Amino acid sequence: MSLRLYDLAGADPKLRFSPYCWRTKFALAHKGLAVETIPWRFTEKEFIAFSGQERVPVLIDGEKTISDSWAIACYLDDAYPDRPSLFGSAAARSPTRFLNAWADTVLNPGIIPFVLLDIFGKIDPKDRDYFRSNREQRFGMTLEAYGAEREKRLPAFRQSLTPLRTMLAAQPFLAGERPAYADYIVFGSFQWARCISSFALIAPDDPVFAWRERMLDAFDGMPRRALAA
Amino acid sequence: MSLRLYDLAGADPKLRFSPYCWRTKFALAHKGLAVETIPWRFTEKEFIAFSGQERVPVLIDGEKTISDSWAIACYLDDAYPDRPSLFGSAAARSPTRFLNAWADTVLNPGIIPFVLLDIFGKIDPKDRDYFRSNREQRFGMTLEAYGAEREKRLPAFRQSLTPLRTMLAAQPFLAGERPAYADYIVFGSFQWARCISSFALIAPDDPVFAWRERMLDAFDGMPRRALAA
Repeated sequence: MSLRLYDLAGADPKLRFSPYCWRTKFALAHKGLAVETIPWRFTEKEFIAFSGQERVPVLIDGEKTISDSWAIACYLDDAYPDRPSLFGSAAARSPTRFLNAWADTVLNPGIIPFVLLDIFGKIDPKDRDYFRSNREQRFGMTLEAYGAEREKRLPAFRQSLTPLRTMLAAQPFLAGERPAYADYIVFGSFQWARCISSFALIAPDDPVFAWRERMLDAFDGMPRRALAA
Repeated sequence: MSLRLYDLAGADPKLRFSPYCWRTKFALAHKGLAVETIPWRFTEKEFIAFSGQERVPVLIDGEKTISDSWAIACYLDDAYPDRPSLFGSAAARSPTRFLNAWADTVLNPGIIPFVLLDIFGKIDPKDRDYFRSNREQRFGMTLEAYGAEREKRLPAFRQSLTPLRTMLAAQPFLAGERPAYADYIVFGSFQWARCISSFALIAPDDPVFAWRERMLDAFDGMPRRALAA
């Protein structure tokens, strides 16, 4: 068994910051599966062309290639049913997928303005032209304009965490008494922010903050040891 | 076995519009449990004082009284394990609870401006003073001001449905191939809106619209037959 993962890296190859790659690394750790990560940069599309698409994470498991963090999580639970389950049951996948959709479409877009300039400053120099033109086209303005006034955006961002906060006031982890893939989805986003930026996204008295601390201690502190800003 | 449910009603006792009571009625239907509903108005706090709180739904099952729609759903799955499960598994409860938190804190507050004046127009006359003063204090403005310009709020509301839309583009129901409590949580909100208001919250070409149509056909069309605006 030899698992390999293409993992987004910065100019420093030890800097690994993709929220989607973090989901997969936490999923692999949860299942107790060792993985060799391969640092990959935004412009190295040809290195993952064999996967039929242009984004990481890309997981290689023997003869199989799987891309998309959600598909990888489902694959891992199906391919390794004797290891701890990421979802807990087949029936739990669908509601967990809503968390995935929420993180993809609300949480991650909400975090971007706070970390965009930090990302630009830490990616490999060869990625910078691509990153700037791609993101400026996506957001319809310069990186500097999009990242400006992030303090002003903070109250609305913290307000957007209300569903998380409501959950975490009632139970220690999103998946219940112990963390599982529901937690890794959301924590991947905060780990992304933590690795690339020192901006304080969450107030220390927020139940989300305490949960993030618990998640940083998961897997014997592996997330906390990652190179961070 | 005799189940009774206190169910928010309008001036017309057949008008039942609480999103939280709808969650419970769908949950009871899913489990195949007959229930006698008792029409209840906002100001009839003393009629449900025995439940130790002031809101519906309140379910009475023999000696037991349960309030809060989430607690009722969990109770029903625990008390009637031989009937179809609302969550599908114990592990599915926690991620479904995130959907519950999202509906409570994002979806329902998002719908309120579109239906507030319709509610005011259809509640029992004895409820009107209470409803106006309670809601005007909550929103910090008159009902008329809060409900004004709802057309302007529509794009942001529809944008807020993105996580739902993402899910429903990939699978027929939020719970997967068949509806379950994840669907009833969210559909309860749209059924609330449909019963009390004729405002077109969802565009007909939205995957959320097609899902709502499928949900209206659930339980042999019970939701579609409810008195609606």
